Amino acid sequence: MPLTGDVDRLAEAAFDGDRRALARLITIVEEGRPGAGRVLGLAYPRSGRAYRIGLTGAPGAGKSTLTDGLITALRRGGDPVAVLAVDPTSPFSGGAVLGDRVRMQDHASDAGVFIRSMASRGHLGGLSVAAPKGLTLLDAAGFPFVLIETVGVGQDEVEVADAADTTVVVLTPGWGDGIQAAKAGILEIGDVFVVNKADRPGADEAVADLRTMLAMGGERPWAPPILTTVASRGAGLAELLDTVLAHRAHLEAGGGLEEGRRARRRGELRTALASAYARRAAADSGAPEHRRLVALVEQGQLDPWAAAERLLGEVAST
Amino acid sequence: MPLTGDVDRLAEAAFDGDRRALARLITIVEEGRPGAGRVLGLAYPRSGRAYRIGLTGAPGAGKSTLTDGLITALRRGGDPVAVLAVDPTSPFSGGAVLGDRVRMQDHASDAGVFIRSMASRGHLGGLSVAAPKGLTLLDAAGFPFVLIETVGVGQDEVEVADAADTTVVVLTPGWGDGIQAAKAGILEIGDVFVVNKADRPGADEAVADLRTMLAMGGERPWAPPILTTVASRGAGLAELLDTVLAHRAHLEAGGGLEEGRRARRRGELRTALASAYARRAAADSGAPEHRRLVALVEQGQLDPWAAAERLLGEVAST
Repeated sequence: MPLTGDVDRLAEAAFDGDRRALARLITIVEEGRPGAGRVLGLAYPRSGRAYRIGLTGAPGAGKSTLTDGLITALRRGGDPVAVLAVDPTSPFSGGAVLGDRVRMQDHASDAGVFIRSMASRGHLGGLSVAAPKGLTLLDAAGFPFVLIETVGVGQDEVEVADAADTTVVVLTPGWGDGIQAAKAGILEIGDVFVVNKADRPGADEAVADLRTMLAMGGERPWAPPILTTVASRGAGLAELLDTVLAHRAHLEAGGGLEEGRRARRRGELRTALASAYARRAAADSGAPEHRRLVALVEQGQLDPWAAAERLLGEVAST
Repeated sequence: MPLTGDVDRLAEAAFDGDRRALARLITIVEEGRPGAGRVLGLAYPRSGRAYRIGLTGAPGAGKSTLTDGLITALRRGGDPVAVLAVDPTSPFSGGAVLGDRVRMQDHASDAGVFIRSMASRGHLGGLSVAAPKGLTLLDAAGFPFVLIETVGVGQDEVEVADAADTTVVVLTPGWGDGIQAAKAGILEIGDVFVVNKADRPGADEAVADLRTMLAMGGERPWAPPILTTVASRGAGLAELLDTVLAHRAHLEAGGGLEEGRRARRRGELRTALASAYARRAAADSGAPEHRRLVALVEQGQLDPWAAAERLLGEVAST
């Protein structure tokens, strides 16, 4: 259990560029260990400088390879890069996912690259609770670019899109047509669309379908570009980085970057509030009346929504 | 704004088999209209008889066609069937998703089939808040079988798996290998796995990969079977229904069905509590101290997690 002084020293080292200290700091925050609140309090005022690039899309679309390529492209400019890779928590997938990250470990000897995995499930509130904290720490540690890579298409991805300044949606020719993209709800979260594995049949159709579906959404201040890449050969990655930087310039010129960050902080507060409330409820769960209501709900005798209102009354009156 | 008497009459009609009344009841609950709490209070004691079958998997896997085939297979036995189709909320996809459901509307003239779409986003708490309520209403209306169809692979799907007695995970040969399935976190939520579009190349490999990955999870009381289907031709659907019913028999024999339902009700209570707390916080958001803290967070001057603790103190002390 670190003392406040220890946590302060660890944070100072991490924010000064000590990568091992940074890794320990993230673990403290991710696992909610003692001192986690202190760490966040120190990190927030130092954050807000990193540009956050999210990569999301269906499993198998090649996001890890694309992330790897973006790291290389960014490193060419000399900037340090941090990556937060968000994986579903799974007793099955731990090893498999780590295996998949081996490619990125080509950068392991590069002190300018910091890669961290985080689990999206098994924590109260899922991804939304742990990831924004991790991103704030990476930001406070001075990385001018932070990449956020996620697996799957679903609520997690929407949350990650909220956490990014520019969201890159990765598709493949075989993945499905524009209607499938619409069904997955990804059209409105993408600032940049990438059809990866574009050397496979159907790439042109995928681009055309996407274009049609995006046009149905009407005029927007930023028309999301659709790029093609073959990440495994490095093809199209420089163009992808250029497009991301063009989106950044667009946001900075129109005030959208600051507005987006204010919205993000509001969202983070909502998440923090829900999490704080849930903890409070859990702390009260040993009370006899709480246990009685839970048992009635378990047995199907009491509507859980009515029970929640009664339990809320209990908590609020303590 | 319906009066309590109106809601009671509507609920009575719905639970007696009036499908239009049922549709109106679901809308009241989904949109949180006045009387929603009363409706749930009436529905819960009548629920617990429906067997809930969840279908989930990546977009484009053919879940709608498979759901359609399961309806046909269940109707052959004479049982009424309800379907809750959960779609991502999207300004783009509304029309597209409805178009995709046209196939299911072949059953529109069959009074024994009731199909309802629900949006998974845009509501506080996402899918987890609205869908369990809708399922309870369908259950209370006396359907012996309720199918739950979802789009995408992510947190939503895990929540839907929690809501189902048997979860069917739908994959395709082109979708990816076992490692991709593990990355998407779907291996542990499936009670039955289906490789659909099995007339395409790669079906055998997909089955073999899945088998290998599932074996890595170790021995479980129920070893999830892996089936192949070509839903568009109706191939394999009778076997799929038989397998689902075998899983049901397994759960009933081992006490797992009742245990699963108790866990589901506990989970629903947690969701309801979080939702009630969030409403409470929103109701308090006009207070000057609340507004001041939100502004500090927006400007990046105050850590949202610390702000949440202070706001919680405010709410608890009112």
